Amino acid sequence: MQLYIGNKNYSSWSMRPWVLMTHFGLPFEEALVRFDSFDPGSRFKTVVGALAPTGKVPLLVEGDLIVWDSLAIAETLAERFPQHPLWPADPAARARARSLCAEMHSGFGALRNACPMNIEASLPEVGAQVLREQPAVAADLARLQTMWTEALAASGGPFLFGDFGIVDAYYAPVVARLRSYALPVSPAVQAYMDRIWASPGVAAWVAQALVERDFLGFEEPYRRAPAA
Amino acid sequence: MQLYIGNKNYSSWSMRPWVLMTHFGLPFEEALVRFDSFDPGSRFKTVVGALAPTGKVPLLVEGDLIVWDSLAIAETLAERFPQHPLWPADPAARARARSLCAEMHSGFGALRNACPMNIEASLPEVGAQVLREQPAVAADLARLQTMWTEALAASGGPFLFGDFGIVDAYYAPVVARLRSYALPVSPAVQAYMDRIWASPGVAAWVAQALVERDFLGFEEPYRRAPAA
Repeated sequence: MQLYIGNKNYSSWSMRPWVLMTHFGLPFEEALVRFDSFDPGSRFKTVVGALAPTGKVPLLVEGDLIVWDSLAIAETLAERFPQHPLWPADPAARARARSLCAEMHSGFGALRNACPMNIEASLPEVGAQVLREQPAVAADLARLQTMWTEALAASGGPFLFGDFGIVDAYYAPVVARLRSYALPVSPAVQAYMDRIWASPGVAAWVAQALVERDFLGFEEPYRRAPAA
Repeated sequence: MQLYIGNKNYSSWSMRPWVLMTHFGLPFEEALVRFDSFDPGSRFKTVVGALAPTGKVPLLVEGDLIVWDSLAIAETLAERFPQHPLWPADPAARARARSLCAEMHSGFGALRNACPMNIEASLPEVGAQVLREQPAVAADLARLQTMWTEALAASGGPFLFGDFGIVDAYYAPVVARLRSYALPVSPAVQAYMDRIWASPGVAAWVAQALVERDFLGFEEPYRRAPAA
């Protein structure tokens, strides 16, 4: 299996299946297609568009089979590797975990727009300003705080549904955003975020993101390019 | 099981699981919460917000278990009723069907914004104007045309993956939009849309939408309220 992804510092949707597969030791070859630009003639759009109609990453490719979209990839992997507890074993917990993933998949637009993932960046002053000026971002943060607090209390932790699974991989890029922009959370949520950051799949992704050093201006509303 | 939904004429996300469950004869009680408004103090937000953190429909409720979001509901139903072919039986087809559903779940924003579902409305002149003025809507329509044509060719029809399933229920509200706004499609796609419209779950929803007669101004960018 090949997993097509974008830049590790920036591509939040790519991060999800990569972290999941790495955490559980699922075999895959990484195919990183650099975000040169998202214009129709760019190398990124040419390579990815030849594989999938959406022209977006992540993509899971196995021979003729191409699965696009992180959620379809997660469900496909859960089916293919039933020996690994990618979803919670309990049906009710699994239904709830799927609800949380779907909520992420179509939601949190304000946070995603205002605070794009940028693992190497530290932008606490931007985070404070965004929180002051954009109530929708504050509402997204409040929802995350409630969601994670309730899930951790219900499962007993250490991850949202007990052991690390798809839902934790799904929220890992959100953890990256909260860190970069230093958005305030409760001590219990901070401890969960620290556990996510130390978990093996996330730690591996972050380590590789930090050595990438590929500053892309169109992904950087808040920083200037480093001096050459 | 209870399925919480909104107005049948307008609520495209509600339509998906209702059509799916009705098509396959899955037992459920309908709980229709009228879209009085989406303001925080509205009856809709009070009722739905007491059940689910997103404050949105559809919701599937069974005792303490609450599943929010149409995609999580579809996966949960597929697990609960394995005797029904909600997903294609072939793993590769199933992965592709999931990709199509996920693509809908987070995409087609231009079409959704410009052409809100409104089953009883006939707005061909609006559709023609939107297509002329909004290239993103034309791109969404072109993608649907390609997606459906390819899926029907690959499966042989009559539905996207052979027999009617989740992915057809997922695109049924899109069919409703293309009909209301008279967006142009190929004869093969029109024939698929006609089969969708005649399928029992969709036909039942549409029949009930047409007798609803509950004009909601905030869902109507293009029509004026009928005279009292």
